[in-house]
This record gives sequence, C-alpha cells and structure tokens, in this order.
Amino acid sequence: MPFKVIKQNILKFNEDRADKIRRTLDKRGVFMVNIISSPGSGKTTLLEKVTPLLKSEEISFAILAGDCFTSNDAVRLDKAGAKVTQINTGNACHIDAQLIQKALKEVNIGELDFVIVENVGNMVCPAEFDLGEDCKIALLSVPEGHDKPLKYPLLFKESELVIINKLDLLKQTDFDLEQCEKNIFKVNPKVCILKMSCRNGRGINAFVKWIKERISNKNKSFDLATS
Amino acid sequence: MPFKVIKQNILKFNEDRADKIRRTLDKRGVFMVNIISSPGSGKTTLLEKVTPLLKSEEISFAILAGDCFTSNDAVRLDKAGAKVTQINTGNACHIDAQLIQKALKEVNIGELDFVIVENVGNMVCPAEFDLGEDCKIALLSVPEGHDKPLKYPLLFKESELVIINKLDLLKQTDFDLEQCEKNIFKVNPKVCILKMSCRNGRGINAFVKWIKERISNKNKSFDLATS
Repeated sequence: MPFKVIKQNILKFNEDRADKIRRTLDKRGVFMVNIISSPGSGKTTLLEKVTPLLKSEEISFAILAGDCFTSNDAVRLDKAGAKVTQINTGNACHIDAQLIQKALKEVNIGELDFVIVENVGNMVCPAEFDLGEDCKIALLSVPEGHDKPLKYPLLFKESELVIINKLDLLKQTDFDLEQCEKNIFKVNPKVCILKMSCRNGRGINAFVKWIKERISNKNKSFDLATS
Repeated sequence: MPFKVIKQNILKFNEDRADKIRRTLDKRGVFMVNIISSPGSGKTTLLEKVTPLLKSEEISFAILAGDCFTSNDAVRLDKAGAKVTQINTGNACHIDAQLIQKALKEVNIGELDFVIVENVGNMVCPAEFDLGEDCKIALLSVPEGHDKPLKYPLLFKESELVIINKLDLLKQTDFDLEQCEKNIFKVNPKVCILKMSCRNGRGINAFVKWIKERISNKNKSFDLATS
C-alpha cells in the first residue's frame, strides 16, 4: 500500500507551512477562518451578505476565494465591496497551506483584523488540510440532507462552528432539522450550530456577532503576548 | 514540486487496474456507469426510484455504493430491492479502480447486464479516476446553482450524460436552467442532458430508456465480438 506513506508526506509538508502561517497570524493578532462545504451550499452568498456588515463594524478583512477554475466568486465578492484574492487550484480538490502562503503575500496582513478562506466546494479533502487557520467552519445546506454529518464526519469533527443554511427550503425537502443537529453533535459534541437562511437573512447577524467575539478574543491574547 | 509526480504515479497505478476491469466487463458484455455528484444531489434517491423499473424490465444489475463512512445508502438501496455492495473509502475522497476490483468480486458478474457505481459525494476528485466504466454520469441539483459546470469542468467534460435533478425546486431558487445548459455545453458540446425531479418523477423513465439503449448497444458489440 504505497498510498498511505505518500499521503503522510504530503500532509507533513502541508503541516509545516500551516504552522508558519499560524505563527505569522498570531504575531499580528489576525483571526483566520477556513469555510468548507459542498459546491453550492452558499459560501459566496454568505460572504456577500456579511461583507457590508463587517465593513460597518469597521472590521478590516480580506477574503481568499478558492475555486478549481473561474474567478466568478471573486468577482461577486469584489462587487459586494470585499478585498478578495482568487486562488485557483486547477483540478486540485482543496486549498493547501502553500497556496495560502502565496495568497497572504497579496494582502497587507498588517492592516487586517480578519482573514476568511472560502475553500473549494468539497466536503472531503479540504477537511484534511490545515491552512494555519484559527478554526474551520462547516456549511451544510438543507437540500443536501440531514444525514451528511455522519457520512462526511471529518469536516464536522474538525469544525468549531457548523452553519445550517437554506432553512427557507425546509418545507420543500425531507430535511429533519432535529435529526441533523443530533447527527452533528454525535460527531462533535462541543460544536456550535448556527441556523441560517442567506435568502431571508436569518442568522447573518448572529454570524457577524460570533466573528466579532472571536476577533476580540484573539486581540486579547495578542495584547497579553505583546504586553 | 513533488506533488505532480506523485499524482501521476497514483493515476497510472489506477489506470492499469481500470483497463483490466474494462476488459473483464467487455468480455462479458456488462455495461457499467459511474455516477458522480456533490453530496446530497440525489444519487441514492435516483437509484431507489430506478431499481423497481429496471427489475420490471428484467435487467439484472448490481449497485456498488461508495461512501466515506456509514452504510446508510446501501441500506436504503437494499430496501428498495437492489443488489448492493457497500464501498467505504474512509477519509478518501473518491473510489479508485482497486476498490471496484474488490467490490466486483462480491457480485456474480456473469449474471449481470448492468453495474452502477454510486461514487463518493464529491464533484472534483472522482472525475479524475477511471474505474473501467463505460461512461460517467454527472448529477447536478438545482439548489447547487447553474454556475457549477464552469467551476468544476472536469466532471462535466468527462461525462456522457448530465442529469439536472431537483427541478421541483426551480421556483424557490435563483437557478437559471437555460444558462445552466449553456454552461454545460460550453464545457462539453456533445453531452446529453436529462432534466429530472426524483421527487415528482419527471425524467426517471427517460433515464431507464437511456440505460436500456446503452445495455442493448453494449450487447450488440459483445455479440459481434463473440460471433
């Protein structure tokens, strides 16, 4: 079985780079999240909605938008008023730490409070790659089904926050919200769950509040470390 | 860049096995499809609906159901009356040809007309791995958005048939069906597109008809080769 060894080498190579990124962000008190979901769960729409709210809170942030091909998401986020850098992975199924190192060189980290990585649409591989982020966020949308946390457990286990999006489609699907929450807690009993509909606005303010608290906590530990 | 070389080795290793599978299936006149989509696009629901129809047409078939973890899909398909073998990939993001070789040993190929591989829910990696199938089928569901064929082109380029599922949700989303078809044809001008709603039954019979024709064509070339 040559696969296992090869995979470990790739992951070790990635981990070293992720540790460097984490040290750089920690030194400057910048909070970074890595948002992971299936294609079409609503990552870009969420970031479009959040952008003006973060700006009105005077939070300085940049988005690193990952996609195999196209700059469609980056164009949408730029229109919404965000500072955005496109990361194209080609046929690669995830962003790795090396790509984040390159992308961070394009933004002035010294001026930022917050970095958002919008990963490639894929529930499996991105969950395996540490990008040096403070935390992973899993986004699951109602039409995908309440069974997904059990079928793709690594993502839900690795995430600090799970957002259940497209709640406006609850009545049109067989999605069982209660069962979904049970499935999420089965995989990760300590995770925070946020119910959302980017379409009707439910949960967006709660997400901004969560971001503000996390940035504030990071700043506190940054102040302690540098005082 | 050690990645490229490693990937090529893995793909070569896979390709050799896929060629062996293809020869075995060709020798016996068995038609095999590899269905690929995001998590929750409706692969299992489609196979549940198709199972009784294939049985009433006296088509002898087996489903190889791929998932990272759980046997939930296999249990559902077994209940629907299908012969099903579960393939669990662990944290691996795709089924490879070696796993198909093992799974095919569990079914009596000599008795079959048709094998359906239900791949792991992932639009990226599974498209890269030849499993020895006659053709790949891409499944895209309305809530995922009409832009996906451009963002994940390899799958749509590699597929002979694209099924657009969950058409019943058209009115509740911003999905532009015409634009979606244009996006698909941009990536793959020769592909066949089938519009479907597993929920209200639209397109299911057309899919069964497509399967029957393909099995019949495979049998013809099998008869020619052996006569």
